[in-house]
Amino acid sequence: MPTIAPSARLSIDPARLVSRLDELGEIGAISGTIGCARLALTDDDKAGRDLVRTWMEDLGLDISTDGIGNVVATMIGFDPTVTPVMMGSHIDTVATGGRYDGNLGVLAGLEVIETAIAAIDRGELQLDRPLAVGWFTDEEGARFAPDMLGSLVYVGGMPLEDALEIEGIDGAIVGDELDRIGYRGAAPTPGRVPHAFVELHIEQGPVLEDAGITIGAVEGVQGISWTELTISGQSCHAGTTPMRLRRDPGVVASRVNVFVRELAERFGGAQVATCGVITHTPNLVNVVPSQVTMTVDLRNTSESKLQQAEAEFHRFVHEVADAEGVEVEFRTLARFEPVDFDPRVVDLVAATADARGLSTHRMPSGAGHDAQMFARVCPAGMIFTPSVVGISHHVHEYTEPADLEAGANVLLDVVIGLAGTEFTS
Amino acid sequence: MPTIAPSARLSIDPARLVSRLDELGEIGAISGTIGCARLALTDDDKAGRDLVRTWMEDLGLDISTDGIGNVVATMIGFDPTVTPVMMGSHIDTVATGGRYDGNLGVLAGLEVIETAIAAIDRGELQLDRPLAVGWFTDEEGARFAPDMLGSLVYVGGMPLEDALEIEGIDGAIVGDELDRIGYRGAAPTPGRVPHAFVELHIEQGPVLEDAGITIGAVEGVQGISWTELTISGQSCHAGTTPMRLRRDPGVVASRVNVFVRELAERFGGAQVATCGVITHTPNLVNVVPSQVTMTVDLRNTSESKLQQAEAEFHRFVHEVADAEGVEVEFRTLARFEPVDFDPRVVDLVAATADARGLSTHRMPSGAGHDAQMFARVCPAGMIFTPSVVGISHHVHEYTEPADLEAGANVLLDVVIGLAGTEFTS
Repeated sequence: MPTIAPSARLSIDPARLVSRLDELGEIGAISGTIGCARLALTDDDKAGRDLVRTWMEDLGLDISTDGIGNVVATMIGFDPTVTPVMMGSHIDTVATGGRYDGNLGVLAGLEVIETAIAAIDRGELQLDRPLAVGWFTDEEGARFAPDMLGSLVYVGGMPLEDALEIEGIDGAIVGDELDRIGYRGAAPTPGRVPHAFVELHIEQGPVLEDAGITIGAVEGVQGISWTELTISGQSCHAGTTPMRLRRDPGVVASRVNVFVRELAERFGGAQVATCGVITHTPNLVNVVPSQVTMTVDLRNTSESKLQQAEAEFHRFVHEVADAEGVEVEFRTLARFEPVDFDPRVVDLVAATADARGLSTHRMPSGAGHDAQMFARVCPAGMIFTPSVVGISHHVHEYTEPADLEAGANVLLDVVIGLAGTEFTS
Repeated sequence: MPTIAPSARLSIDPARLVSRLDELGEIGAISGTIGCARLALTDDDKAGRDLVRTWMEDLGLDISTDGIGNVVATMIGFDPTVTPVMMGSHIDTVATGGRYDGNLGVLAGLEVIETAIAAIDRGELQLDRPLAVGWFTDEEGARFAPDMLGSLVYVGGMPLEDALEIEGIDGAIVGDELDRIGYRGAAPTPGRVPHAFVELHIEQGPVLEDAGITIGAVEGVQGISWTELTISGQSCHAGTTPMRLRRDPGVVASRVNVFVRELAERFGGAQVATCGVITHTPNLVNVVPSQVTMTVDLRNTSESKLQQAEAEFHRFVHEVADAEGVEVEFRTLARFEPVDFDPRVVDLVAATADARGLSTHRMPSGAGHDAQMFARVCPAGMIFTPSVVGISHHVHEYTEPADLEAGANVLLDVVIGLAGTEFTS
């Protein structure tokens, strides 16, 4: 069991952290907002990478770039056979992104390393292992699918050669774009397995703010089931077609939306259900739609409950489609099983926050993160900080400076603690 | 009470009627289909008008064009103080139109007049009143709102000067377009009130075909209530936002869709209800929508029942919106009270079809038609012929030649009967 670092008296420099977040956020800035757009492997992503690499160089870190463009910077002066405690996240964003999502995990990692180096120099800190911080290519998946691509390749979940051939929404190819921006590196993939991995991230949801909690100790990542339904009925005139002769795919889509809402409320716990997409064709006021496309996003921390939700959802769709006389085509857009983070890391996050006098809450992550890839190969965990109004992937994404500072200080203590911990299993 | 015409032995020439429908349908033809596009007052509409006017001229009819471009052709050789029995409809189409909607009422009227003139010449028919056929500008409303514009102006429902200033979806102005295509005429509006008005039209719905009936005796036009709802909630991440913190306008829209479907089934009778438009913003799989726009189309032949449906719908929207914590803005897009056709005309249509050995069914019209404007000023009625699969406003719109013939023959008998009828009220 890791113990809370005795170095809890160390603290990061909050002004430096915020200043770097702001400076990085100016690259690809969306005019008139605090948001930014740096889709993976674009010119703006390159500019962001170049800036963060400069900061890594300024700290004298050992910087390696691998074949998918993941960049990892490691403290020097340690026995090269000792694996580092790694922090990190991503610096690509969605098209209407904020300056915290991903960026916080990278720049807080950098801030932790700068703080640790200074403490070592002052003789106030000794580390058995180096600390490292990385950013991982195309976490958002907004340009190239799948998301979490760089960390997936890092942990050996996808061969590099397959990843390099992926075509983006704009027709660009990953390998070509890496060459173009100069970030196809020589470090091998799969990458070196770290001693442990910790990612600080904004919550991207309203739970912490709603409960007035500063630190989320993330227990795992929800399993995700995305289904697209294409429902085909009979288009007809809204005035001239009696109800008994209708085969309305819009009514079926609406029944499904109401059903999955009620399913989520009935299941309770971590179950969520969302119909984000409902598209009527032809979408005219006086025409019963001929076809409706909709998506159903089901998530749960329990794989068995997620499977139960999927089964109920499928059964209901078949029932209402038969009753209405419409055809339904199912397409699975994504399916990930839940991920459990290492309980030793989760406990350490919670205990560290507590020792710092910060309120803390154990919770799942509803979104996917690079840390879940590292959970396949080493003890891994995450720290959440609150998102104002729960907003993310939006130019209004914001986290209070005091919460950024608290999160980075917990990250500091946790990685120092992990550097002093030998895991026996 | 009008009586069935003793001239029931007369019959129209079905080949000539179908040939003219096909020839007119070639103007603005949609390549690879039997559909056509002649939006009101476009070059294609002008070409269609010119063709039909040529046919009117060939029959030696007295042709008048009024200030809104309505064209009426009347048999000559009658006392000019005797008002005609008028037939007619429109020849403009929607952008993805068929060759029957509107066109049938005009060309069947022409066919009836040609048949009557030949019978008079052969000494087989005497008429106390002339027959007339007209087409009315912009019935579809697909380019200029409101629909049924020409007949509305004809019966005095809108001042001509207001109509001439209407701007279309493409920025064009009605008066300018009439001048451009040479169809701003000198005949006054409101136009001369006919003795009676009868419109033959395809059903545009599946009722007749479904019941195996050839002739619909149209009792009236359903009242129409169109409402647009703009539902504003809180966009959030589909994974990270617990159900209890959601304010999802998509769920509200779906509940409304299911509610109005069930309302229509509960009301029964002529009540129909349709949510043709449901538009999610941003319409992404993993984002709870911030806003949803939807339309609710309610129709009934009874004004009191329509008002009851509207009241229940409004109450339900407020209830579910309050429960979900979303804001709803209501906008009335259209509201027309039901129209009753003259029962003497309805009875005559039914009795005439029966006398011809044709199956017949009394029914409302779910769509608006020029005849409902004439119902404001004179005895008016409509005859429906079946639409294959109920399809209309679509390039697949089709009516069997035998049904076209049956409909035109009923029209022939009905107008001859009306020409011999003096209405006492």
